[in-house]
Amino acid sequence: MTDERTVFFVSDGTGVTAETLGHSLLTQFDTVSFVPATVPFVDTADKAQKIVETVNRITLHSGLRPIIFSTTVDPEVRGILQQADAQFVDFFGSFIGELEAELHHESSHAKGKAHGMREGGGYDVRIEAMNFALNNDDGAKITDYAKADVILVGVSRSGKTPTCLYLALQYGIFAANYPLTEDDLEKRVLPRFLANQQQKLYGLTIDPARLQQIRGERRGNSRYASAKQCELEVYEAERLFKAERIPYLATTHTSIEEIAATILHERGLKRRML
Amino acid sequence: MTDERTVFFVSDGTGVTAETLGHSLLTQFDTVSFVPATVPFVDTADKAQKIVETVNRITLHSGLRPIIFSTTVDPEVRGILQQADAQFVDFFGSFIGELEAELHHESSHAKGKAHGMREGGGYDVRIEAMNFALNNDDGAKITDYAKADVILVGVSRSGKTPTCLYLALQYGIFAANYPLTEDDLEKRVLPRFLANQQQKLYGLTIDPARLQQIRGERRGNSRYASAKQCELEVYEAERLFKAERIPYLATTHTSIEEIAATILHERGLKRRML
Repeated sequence: MTDERTVFFVSDGTGVTAETLGHSLLTQFDTVSFVPATVPFVDTADKAQKIVETVNRITLHSGLRPIIFSTTVDPEVRGILQQADAQFVDFFGSFIGELEAELHHESSHAKGKAHGMREGGGYDVRIEAMNFALNNDDGAKITDYAKADVILVGVSRSGKTPTCLYLALQYGIFAANYPLTEDDLEKRVLPRFLANQQQKLYGLTIDPARLQQIRGERRGNSRYASAKQCELEVYEAERLFKAERIPYLATTHTSIEEIAATILHERGLKRRML
Repeated sequence: MTDERTVFFVSDGTGVTAETLGHSLLTQFDTVSFVPATVPFVDTADKAQKIVETVNRITLHSGLRPIIFSTTVDPEVRGILQQADAQFVDFFGSFIGELEAELHHESSHAKGKAHGMREGGGYDVRIEAMNFALNNDDGAKITDYAKADVILVGVSRSGKTPTCLYLALQYGIFAANYPLTEDDLEKRVLPRFLANQQQKLYGLTIDPARLQQIRGERRGNSRYASAKQCELEVYEAERLFKAERIPYLATTHTSIEEIAATILHERGLKRRML
């Protein structure tokens, strides 16, 4: 008997919420291996019935019940899923009752609304934030910094671009980024157009060995990717952050989500969408 | 008495999971207004105690108990939060027991692991996918399409770029995009470099009035943003999608999450990270 457990993330919407819930619980069982499948847009009895058939077949053949993480709202669909020979983790059903009681309101039982709140006025600001990040990437434009919520600074390939795009997509934050040049690092001062933005600056740094590896994949055997150059740039960048009192974070072992949440938290940034 | 309810998303990590789960439940109560606050990195008894004090103050002054959506794992921290005069929605505690029983394993009770799974080998592929999206945006490069998992096509400003970046960040999907030119639309054929990629193509379309509005914000009073031009381009693009049997979707009232999940689902794409 194998310890491989099939997991279904079932949703009447995109499945992102079901995946988020399921992942965060499953990561607590790091000795078990899981085979995940997402089934989005399950909004009819027929679709639910098909999942039940698949699940029951797996249970019969493997002897191990799959786990179903469900965020579906429709009572009929949930009733069908519940009958599968599986462990049914019913996100909606588990909490909606107590929330109704607390809020003295009935829930609307509307399906696929998980991203509705986010879209309420959030769509435009999100696209604007993303365009801002793209237009202000890599020091491409230094005239728009007045509009920025935050300006990430760091050496080339320290993780600035993905962080800016994530801040835009997830939080609607206007994030620019500026790559510290050799000139900046040698002079040991910030360029003048950044000096009056101190309260918006946030530094990213990285382990020199990791930086060398990342740069090497792009331009192997170059001065840019040499151990010496990477060490020097990181040393000078961190020295500059300290001298200028710019809060900073090492991205080496930190996920984009964590970097973004830390910046938001430490800089006290107000998100522009929920 | 106001109907405004304070909501806390409390986490020992970034708070993104608590927010996602909490939002999806709160959107079911569209007649209640909520005042949300996220408190990330709550990993000590002291930090939990401070939240309890804030919560109790709000309850005392407003007469309405806040709702705490918590994904914290540590039993001590959860125990403290539980004592606040609030409705405590405990995502971890509600499900971890039944999962332990089902899996015959104890959970590791490790905090802030929600994004751990995603990062397991997922970090590099995610950055690669993002770089791919940036390098292959807006038809910038047409030589890399062999490496693409999907190529979005559509008229200018139909939502291709945000969708590609979201596909990269959320799923590690290599997504390129190509803007249909006036030349393509007039000739009513796909450019040759796309013709042999049919199985990777996915079309995005948009309501012409909405397109006019979006284009107008960038270049008001231009032919590009005129009603006539927007109508013509959308008409011809949809005609081309049908003729070439390219599946397509209208982005007008659809969130980026939904567009991305639909593309994944309809094209049967395998995500490169969890």
